[in-house]
Amino acid sequence: MPYFGAMKIAIINGPNLNLLGKRETDVYGSRSFDVFFGELQARHPDVTLHYFQSNIEGELVSELQRVGFDHDGIILNPAAYTHTSVAIGDAVAAITAPVVEVHISNVHAREDFRKFSHVSAKAAGSIFGLGLEGYALALQWLKGRSA
Amino acid sequence: MPYFGAMKIAIINGPNLNLLGKRETDVYGSRSFDVFFGELQARHPDVTLHYFQSNIEGELVSELQRVGFDHDGIILNPAAYTHTSVAIGDAVAAITAPVVEVHISNVHAREDFRKFSHVSAKAAGSIFGLGLEGYALALQWLKGRSA
Amino acid sequence: MPYFGAMKIAIINGPNLNLLGKRETDVYGSRSFDVFFGELQARHPDVTLHYFQSNIEGELVSELQRVGFDHDGIILNPAAYTHTSVAIGDAVAAITAPVVEVHISNVHAREDFRKFSHVSAKAAGSIFGLGLEGYALALQWLKGRSA
Amino acid sequence: MPYFGAMKIAIINGPNLNLLGKRETDVYGSRSFDVFFGELQARHPDVTLHYFQSNIEGELVSELQRVGFDHDGIILNPAAYTHTSVAIGDAVAAITAPVVEVHISNVHAREDFRKFSHVSAKAAGSIFGLGLEGYALALQWLKGRSA
Amino acid sequence: MPYFGAMKIAIINGPNLNLLGKRETDVYGSRSFDVFFGELQARHPDVTLHYFQSNIEGELVSELQRVGFDHDGIILNPAAYTHTSVAIGDAVAAITAPVVEVHISNVHAREDFRKFSHVSAKAAGSIFGLGLEGYALALQWLKGRSA
Amino acid sequence: MPYFGAMKIAIINGPNLNLLGKRETDVYGSRSFDVFFGELQARHPDVTLHYFQSNIEGELVSELQRVGFDHDGIILNPAAYTHTSVAIGDAVAAITAPVVEVHISNVHAREDFRKFSHVSAKAAGSIFGLGLEGYALALQWLKGRSA
Amino acid sequence: MPYFGAMKIAIINGPNLNLLGKRETDVYGSRSFDVFFGELQARHPDVTLHYFQSNIEGELVSELQRVGFDHDGIILNPAAYTHTSVAIGDAVAAITAPVVEVHISNVHAREDFRKFSHVSAKAAGSIFGLGLEGYALALQWLKGRSA
Amino acid sequence: MPYFGAMKIAIINGPNLNLLGKRETDVYGSRSFDVFFGELQARHPDVTLHYFQSNIEGELVSELQRVGFDHDGIILNPAAYTHTSVAIGDAVAAITAPVVEVHISNVHAREDFRKFSHVSAKAAGSIFGLGLEGYALALQWLKGRSA
Amino acid sequence: MPYFGAMKIAIINGPNLNLLGKRETDVYGSRSFDVFFGELQARHPDVTLHYFQSNIEGELVSELQRVGFDHDGIILNPAAYTHTSVAIGDAVAAITAPVVEVHISNVHAREDFRKFSHVSAKAAGSIFGLGLEGYALALQWLKGRSA
Amino acid sequence: MPYFGAMKIAIINGPNLNLLGKRETDVYGSRSFDVFFGELQARHPDVTLHYFQSNIEGELVSELQRVGFDHDGIILNPAAYTHTSVAIGDAVAAITAPVVEVHISNVHAREDFRKFSHVSAKAAGSIFGLGLEGYALALQWLKGRSA
Amino acid sequence: MPYFGAMKIAIINGPNLNLLGKRETDVYGSRSFDVFFGELQARHPDVTLHYFQSNIEGELVSELQRVGFDHDGIILNPAAYTHTSVAIGDAVAAITAPVVEVHISNVHAREDFRKFSHVSAKAAGSIFGLGLEGYALALQWLKGRSA
Amino acid sequence: MPYFGAMKIAIINGPNLNLLGKRETDVYGSRSFDVFFGELQARHPDVTLHYFQSNIEGELVSELQRVGFDHDGIILNPAAYTHTSVAIGDAVAAITAPVVEVHISNVHAREDFRKFSHVSAKAAGSIFGLGLEGYALALQWLKGRSA
Repeated sequence: MPYFGAMKIAIINGPNLNLLGKRETDVYGSRSFDVFFGELQARHPDVTLHYFQSNIEGELVSELQRVGFDHDGIILNPAAYTHTSVAIGDAVAAITAPVVEVHISNVHAREDFRKFSHVSAKAAGSIFGLGLEGYALALQWLKGRSA
Repeated sequence: MPYFGAMKIAIINGPNLNLLGKRETDVYGSRSFDVFFGELQARHPDVTLHYFQSNIEGELVSELQRVGFDHDGIILNPAAYTHTSVAIGDAVAAITAPVVEVHISNVHAREDFRKFSHVSAKAAGSIFGLGLEGYALALQWLKGRSA
Repeated sequence: MPYFGAMKIAIINGPNLNLLGKRETDVYGSRSFDVFFGELQARHPDVTLHYFQSNIEGELVSELQRVGFDHDGIILNPAAYTHTSVAIGDAVAAITAPVVEVHISNVHAREDFRKFSHVSAKAAGSIFGLGLEGYALALQWLKGRSA
Repeated sequence: MPYFGAMKIAIINGPNLNLLGKRETDVYGSRSFDVFFGELQARHPDVTLHYFQSNIEGELVSELQRVGFDHDGIILNPAAYTHTSVAIGDAVAAITAPVVEVHISNVHAREDFRKFSHVSAKAAGSIFGLGLEGYALALQWLKGRSA
Repeated sequence: MPYFGAMKIAIINGPNLNLLGKRETDVYGSRSFDVFFGELQARHPDVTLHYFQSNIEGELVSELQRVGFDHDGIILNPAAYTHTSVAIGDAVAAITAPVVEVHISNVHAREDFRKFSHVSAKAAGSIFGLGLEGYALALQWLKGRSA
Repeated sequence: MPYFGAMKIAIINGPNLNLLGKRETDVYGSRSFDVFFGELQARHPDVTLHYFQSNIEGELVSELQRVGFDHDGIILNPAAYTHTSVAIGDAVAAITAPVVEVHISNVHAREDFRKFSHVSAKAAGSIFGLGLEGYALALQWLKGRSA
Repeated sequence: MPYFGAMKIAIINGPNLNLLGKRETDVYGSRSFDVFFGELQARHPDVTLHYFQSNIEGELVSELQRVGFDHDGIILNPAAYTHTSVAIGDAVAAITAPVVEVHISNVHAREDFRKFSHVSAKAAGSIFGLGLEGYALALQWLKGRSA
Repeated sequence: MPYFGAMKIAIINGPNLNLLGKRETDVYGSRSFDVFFGELQARHPDVTLHYFQSNIEGELVSELQRVGFDHDGIILNPAAYTHTSVAIGDAVAAITAPVVEVHISNVHAREDFRKFSHVSAKAAGSIFGLGLEGYALALQWLKGRSA
Repeated sequence: MPYFGAMKIAIINGPNLNLLGKRETDVYGSRSFDVFFGELQARHPDVTLHYFQSNIEGELVSELQRVGFDHDGIILNPAAYTHTSVAIGDAVAAITAPVVEVHISNVHAREDFRKFSHVSAKAAGSIFGLGLEGYALALQWLKGRSA
Repeated sequence: MPYFGAMKIAIINGPNLNLLGKRETDVYGSRSFDVFFGELQARHPDVTLHYFQSNIEGELVSELQRVGFDHDGIILNPAAYTHTSVAIGDAVAAITAPVVEVHISNVHAREDFRKFSHVSAKAAGSIFGLGLEGYALALQWLKGRSA
Repeated sequence: MPYFGAMKIAIINGPNLNLLGKRETDVYGSRSFDVFFGELQARHPDVTLHYFQSNIEGELVSELQRVGFDHDGIILNPAAYTHTSVAIGDAVAAITAPVVEVHISNVHAREDFRKFSHVSAKAAGSIFGLGLEGYALALQWLKGRSA
Repeated sequence: MPYFGAMKIAIINGPNLNLLGKRETDVYGSRSFDVFFGELQARHPDVTLHYFQSNIEGELVSELQRVGFDHDGIILNPAAYTHTSVAIGDAVAAITAPVVEVHISNVHAREDFRKFSHVSAKAAGSIFGLGLEGYALALQWLKGRSA
């Protein structure tokens, strides 16, 4: 359990990522996000990790607003909303916490409409295609940045 | 009332379809969906019909996930989200139940942006422009498929 | 054999559909259209079904003109001409019989150029991807409409 | 407090507008919408002003449906959904109350994707770039129209 | 009946023009082409008029080849093939007789895909939207040119 | 000289047409418009022909307004403004006299940007590529229409 | 008549707006701009209103330059030039007076080429579709801004 | 004359190729295809060459179907239909004989619309711009492949 | 003052260039064109320099026609009309004097719509972004060419 | 070894073709180009074959220049540079030796960006998809051309 | 210094990255790559790091081929060639070592042409905008993958 | 020979410009660049002219880096790389010496793909179509700028 005064990092996942480990395991792997999240928190006891998932675009906007002013960083996987949501892009631009965009699969090797992201230009940076480990790399970067 | 062990088919309607029979009756007809649904259930006593409508894209995603692994088929009219929702398309691809996309009006005879569907390529098939009867045809096809 | 005064419905198939059951059976199934047509007529003894197939765009136009003013409905699968033929679209608009467009495979899940139809906007409605059963659904809809 | 029988005008704000006065004050100004709304109601005691804000596209659709048949006018700032929401555009078209679209900043002087609005063509008219005062002008127009 | 040695002009009509006077009379008028053709021949006894209509693109190509080397001019209304036929454009370029393209309706005031012609750039000139009288003007021009 | 009560037809020419017969004679021929106009008036003594040429878009708009409510027809060659002037297209739509658009050369056989006309959709019809004789055909058509 | 030291606001109208009240009254209404202008001046005796209309793009540029450095604001309806004039956009950017763009009709509900404005990005803001009252709202905003 | 058991290769030519040697000899050369075909058969006595030409798209489809299951190879020059015919592309994909696409002229050095081929992606390979000798090269390749 | 028989070179400036030195001096510099023109004439006493500026597209066309047949060269800065005027491009093509296109600022480093020029392809050459000195270089080139 | 006075043909291969036979053997086959080249030279003892491969675009340009004025023909497979290199296209246009473009695989059946070639329009002709044998066909054609 | 049998990871940098720390330090930071590389090697003594930089596209292709079959991973920053090089994309696809694409700056927040990468779809994954630390994250991922 | 302390200007030419005077002399003239360069140096004894030509994109990048920090100006003709090289554009942006882009022919009057330059927006300015004299003008401008 993280100690008092620890860094606070939020992980926010978009639509259908609640199915992780259940659907299309050839693309996304068979580990559920909960299991992964537990391991990640265990590996980083000096950080308070917060987790939020929603299938609803506007709830992702609200959560970004909620954590975006007092957390040390946000790891955001907007999933399908990556390619369609101006609202999430606007929220990322509006908040003050640095945001790292993460995608589990290599979106550039899939349909054309997955090549554009409304979030990339507003985020600090992005990590694509490196699996769940992408979240861990993002976390490491945010920690290094705040150190 | 359907008997035990009946097939289960879900009908999921997208935004503004709760206004059916009230708005733009020249385009959509004057029957409300509730009345039509009652008739449809009556015509198919051997099927348990489930109905869900929401104006919220993410709730449609969640409902698809909820019914998508244990129902025998889904009839989906994503309405306006047809043309903009990668998230609903992803949900249709992620679940295992066969999905038939239905549109009441002939979307190809309307604005250009209604000609593209994020759902069609992920669905088993689509029925456009045949009015409320399109739902009945989709139901019949799903029954024939599972028979 | 249908009795005197029966409804008249024409089924018109476009190019390469004469190969049905012979080519690419993974996409189109292995039933020939002749066998299916026989079954369909048997299932609907109260309807006089007329069948026409041609690989020639202009012959499809001519057939639409020939049956388009005295039949109770037309089921049209323009196949490859769907995507290129303004002439067939014009013919559908010019005649008075209601036309239902049918595609056996889900054209939206194939090449991009198969996503546009010159016929959809002029037809009463369309059915995609439901296999040969799509013709049966179209027939049922046309019968219900004229009933 | 407005008297009995007063006109009813609804103001509906889209995503991130709850941050008004807090974020990007160089673009949007430093006044919160609540303060502005209070002033606006005070300046128009003869009108019952209703206010609704949501980050969720579908809740904006539902609110438009809720107020769209019995209010004398709606002032709608769909914010980011302006550019992506067919559903909100459909809702505006479906209801009977006149809708004036308002944007605080000059969206035409920003990113290219902000130049297209799914709402403009369905609204009575639009006001861009005139700051919070744009809401006041819209209100005045709706009052003049109903007078 | 035209005398020996008269000029020879061919009129070639494309798909669906055999329905002229029968379909969509608000767009194309109610005179059949046969009646008009008889009147035109009567007004120009010094010219041997030849008439050909087909719904088949390739037959139009063949007819252009057949009359294209010994006639004094060709009046061509490719109808729907105007917008899709490279083959007819190639035939017009290959023959030696001057071709005037005629359209009865104003194709520029209709669907966008009717704004492009594969024939215009290969023809001597074009007449759009002046009704059946367009054929008469084209005939007059071809006569003046050969005089 | 035309007699009292004659039909009134205006010919309006756009930019650079004052150079006709002087520049690029391989494209436009060597006859000046003045000479042609004199011949045309002589051939049609029963019509009062009015002529106006300007290089200025707005003067063409003003002239269309001036003659557009009391003349029996207008022959308009907008030249370069054909492809760029919404204003001239709006003027053609606003006036009541029928307008025939004429182009001396075959604009479809030239640069791509000459293939679009802001006037065609608003005019009664168009004649392209038939040389100066195109004006004569347009005049004849307008006379026939008013006869 | 406005008193000494009054604010100076210029209204500049583009092509075909001199026909207001005469043409297409279903779109633009039947009031002439002169009548409206008189009323507007009467309602705002504390402002010196200046009016200019031209069908010529360059004269609108010149007028913007003439009033653009000493007036307190400009209300500009560039009409058809909205969509094609880089020159007017440049003039708006070059001058120092704030410019409000006004369109009487809802240009977004008309042809596609009317959806782009060369002026919007350079103006302070824009008002579309609110009829002649749009000028009054713009005037009020400019007054409030200078107050 | 080829002996019993010889390879069977079909050559199929599209629209306007019957004019070869007669039209546009600067582009296509002055040899007629008949003469060339005789020479080609003489050079390859061990192959039964079959020749078919049609101006009709659908007849090309039918011929491809007729020879496409029992010939050892097909040399196809779809001419103008190359760029517009989904139907011929579908036929090439449906048959089992290998198809080599041949074009006499270098289509890439001509109009832009000749740069796209509906056949190339479905054929084994393509030969452009090498004149009639391209057919000979294709034949040689098909022989080598079957040897 | 230039002597008898001197070369004649015209400088023609388009819209808003009369504001040079007054507006946006960070982009265009603070020297007025009049001052620069005087210096340029002084530096080249052997050339008769002619100067013309207009905000009106058609007046630029007329001036090009006026000087285009008897001057030894033209230096043309069409400013905003560069990107929209087919008419000026046509005038440049129609006249016989060589034209050098000059732009003071680097138009390629500004908005996208400034990257296309209707004049460049018709001019002898172009100079962008070298400030007022671009006019001097163009003059020098025209002198060298005529020497 | 070729005798004195033999024809000289150069084969030039672009990037990654040095991996032939090693990488992606399902697409490109398992024969290395060296082995194939030896066989080809052996089959054509009357021709001096020259071979050059580089991964560097500019070295391909230089080699084309080096052999392009004294060889009897060039067989060029620009591989990936086909789709991006204006420089190689310019070199092909600048030299005098005839160039045949060869691609081993059917580039039209792969990614869209492989459908455009900067070389095709400048080459004498092109051969796609016929494997290594395409080089042999090109060689044969060049020999026939020079014979 | 790495011990015998260590993992081998190559870092390959594209054009202009040799200027790192010297040019545009506001975008790319002021650390030279050499300094960073030394630190990185020091932090990972168990890995043999190989470094290569070139401004020449084809040399990057050659280096990818050279290290691509025996290294345990490649970290590739193709810089400007990211957006234009099919050849580098092909090389990444041809080799067997996993490739992680790294960009120091957030290319999505810069010019539009930097939003497309020919490498992303062929790489295992990509890291954008996280500065030089992106190389360290990529290295860590490659190590974890091979562990 | 230039004296000590002279200005240093580099001229850098791209691919195929080494053929100048040898190839396509109708487009580029018959003077070789060497001869021209000698003359230019002779005309400007007060400047040390440096010359570099390469067919290799990356060598042009390297040369720009080499001279870009200590020369007084660079005259760059990127030839074919103008239209495709992000890398050269990046190099121009990275260095401190002012760069003038020069093209000998009028690239705007040639193929469409020659209308876009990756260099123009990063250079100080550009000179197109004025032949070899364009280099002289650029030199003169750079001298004036540094004087």
